[in-house]
Amino acid sequence: MEQSPDERIRITYLLTLAEGEMPEARARAVALEQTVELPDGCYPRRIEEQVVGRLEALEQRGPGRWQAILSFAAALAGDGVPQLLNLVFGNVSFQRGVLVTGLELPSGVLRRFPGPRYGIAGIRAGCGGIRGRPLLCSAAKPQGLSPVELAELCGALAKGGIDIVKDDHGVTDQAAAPFRERVERCQGAVLEANAATGGSTLYFPHVTAPLGGLEERVTIARAAGCRGVLISPFLVGLDTIRWLAESTELMVLVHPTFSGTLLRGDHGIAPAVLFGRLVRPLGADAVIYVSAGGRFPISEQDCEAINTSLREPLDHVRPAFPVAGGGVDVERVPHWIDRYGVDTMFLVGSSLYAQADLETASRRLVEAVREHCDV
Amino acid sequence: MEQSPDERIRITYLLTLAEGEMPEARARAVALEQTVELPDGCYPRRIEEQVVGRLEALEQRGPGRWQAILSFAAALAGDGVPQLLNLVFGNVSFQRGVLVTGLELPSGVLRRFPGPRYGIAGIRAGCGGIRGRPLLCSAAKPQGLSPVELAELCGALAKGGIDIVKDDHGVTDQAAAPFRERVERCQGAVLEANAATGGSTLYFPHVTAPLGGLEERVTIARAAGCRGVLISPFLVGLDTIRWLAESTELMVLVHPTFSGTLLRGDHGIAPAVLFGRLVRPLGADAVIYVSAGGRFPISEQDCEAINTSLREPLDHVRPAFPVAGGGVDVERVPHWIDRYGVDTMFLVGSSLYAQADLETASRRLVEAVREHCDV
Repeated sequence: MEQSPDERIRITYLLTLAEGEMPEARARAVALEQTVELPDGCYPRRIEEQVVGRLEALEQRGPGRWQAILSFAAALAGDGVPQLLNLVFGNVSFQRGVLVTGLELPSGVLRRFPGPRYGIAGIRAGCGGIRGRPLLCSAAKPQGLSPVELAELCGALAKGGIDIVKDDHGVTDQAAAPFRERVERCQGAVLEANAATGGSTLYFPHVTAPLGGLEERVTIARAAGCRGVLISPFLVGLDTIRWLAESTELMVLVHPTFSGTLLRGDHGIAPAVLFGRLVRPLGADAVIYVSAGGRFPISEQDCEAINTSLREPLDHVRPAFPVAGGGVDVERVPHWIDRYGVDTMFLVGSSLYAQADLETASRRLVEAVREHCDV
Repeated sequence: MEQSPDERIRITYLLTLAEGEMPEARARAVALEQTVELPDGCYPRRIEEQVVGRLEALEQRGPGRWQAILSFAAALAGDGVPQLLNLVFGNVSFQRGVLVTGLELPSGVLRRFPGPRYGIAGIRAGCGGIRGRPLLCSAAKPQGLSPVELAELCGALAKGGIDIVKDDHGVTDQAAAPFRERVERCQGAVLEANAATGGSTLYFPHVTAPLGGLEERVTIARAAGCRGVLISPFLVGLDTIRWLAESTELMVLVHPTFSGTLLRGDHGIAPAVLFGRLVRPLGADAVIYVSAGGRFPISEQDCEAINTSLREPLDHVRPAFPVAGGGVDVERVPHWIDRYGVDTMFLVGSSLYAQADLETASRRLVEAVREHCDV
């Protein structure tokens, strides 16, 4: 937890001003709200220097739009992930027109977090050393199926050559498919398929659990031989990512469920900042996001920014896999490979399930991707 | 965890349709997204009956606005709070124009959660049996002060007669004020003030912690003699509320930091549903929200809906205290008592700190409230 006292966290906020608001005053309001929560002067003078956010730059970006760069002493986030989140977008979430468009964590803060243990290279290695093409991911679904039925789907996806088969994020520990039985059967089916095909498919169970239950699910998953897990950190706190990366040797695949309202319009956290700058250093090896061209509204530009943010150099933090999901169609995967590049994972579900035979549909997808990438 | 197989969770969604969208199709899309995440027919027929959300009612509510009531088998949320949250507003958070305006949890689901252990009556009793007036809450702030300085502020607020003194939500375990020393000193200062005045002020430390750290902070708080705690569950998962209510005998005060984007416009969760119908049954004794008339934009109507939702009869679940905060001015507290009623807690910070002497300012507020309520 050692860090230089001079290190500062730099956060870029794009402020959308209401009629008559002054940009300096709005930036100052953010700086106060995120730290002292008191009006100017209602605190000792040394707190101004040590605690209140410092306005580093203020620049107009359009009519009524101003970009403010604020810096904060790294010590303010000294208690880890929850307080970092609080500092970045805690109480200002109740204001209007505050969009976090940049986040620079100094080395001392980044080094407090484990970062991805595997990242792109490690997941590629875990999946049999695949190079030159994107990875393919799919889910055993829907919830309500029995462990035997889910395992059968896992087996079909694995036999078809899908690289990573995960649980659906709505599957946890319901009566229809209790966690332990499901994980053991699904992992067993994938290993059996690998043995039959010579493949290296991995199965990632969804371990999101009520407080106090995560450790047990991880233990069960590891005992079953799983190499990675799926977590929904927006339901249970982003710090679960850090914990998984630090406390286990599992690959960590992040599901974004419940995060949607953060990602809209002129108020929230820009997708590339949320999934890249914030989630990646915590220890996410791969991050699922809803992609353009699917069933949710998001721009291709935002998706490419997420991809960049997960892959670009960042101190000691390994590049993590962007996982484009949310309704990517099998037929369009080659198109998206050209757009997003090969260091992408494609999460394909519905358009595989819509075909008559899941194994054949999977195999066709894998072959199409191989052919497209010439590997 | 026993429940009738026929019990259903009813969720009301207000759908804002884009040009040309059909209300039935939008409602169906929500029902599928929240359960099977597959297109119609790409799953076994029994899943339609057992898992897919059922459209119970569909009604126009304005131009392009339709209210859809969907019901889901209670078993889908059988794994507790994270999966309940997933079911209510997981992946639909990535759609547009989906506002949760109602949530009815059947008795079997409500009884899985502890509900408030104290609620309004229990907190009143804990604060010396105060009746006939609202409770007054304030915070020791800002972060950056030392434990000695924070304790001095706690003492001043307690001597002035504030009923509940809490940590600021930005104060966790930073170097400036390490958790244990801060809690012991602040609690000590409040007890000392009580001994001097004959008062019954309570001190609630902020126990939000990285994963795995909550239990230790709770243990320290209890050992110091604290009767309640402050938690920021949107940073660390709503299930922390359930855990605190179930595993400790502490009063649970909820801070809403980071939840702001859920509460805006036509997409998210209506404040009364989020803080009342969802957070209250988990075990919140008191819930802070940003009030109209403060420094954040929210309508008085929304605030009154929150108040109602926290107080109204709900199965075995005790009424919880609405805590109006976010910049309520001391001078306006009598006004807000008339609007919100006496079963409210007022969280007053800045306008106390803006006065020369915190103890005197607190005493004047308490006296004004007593006079206004004739107690």
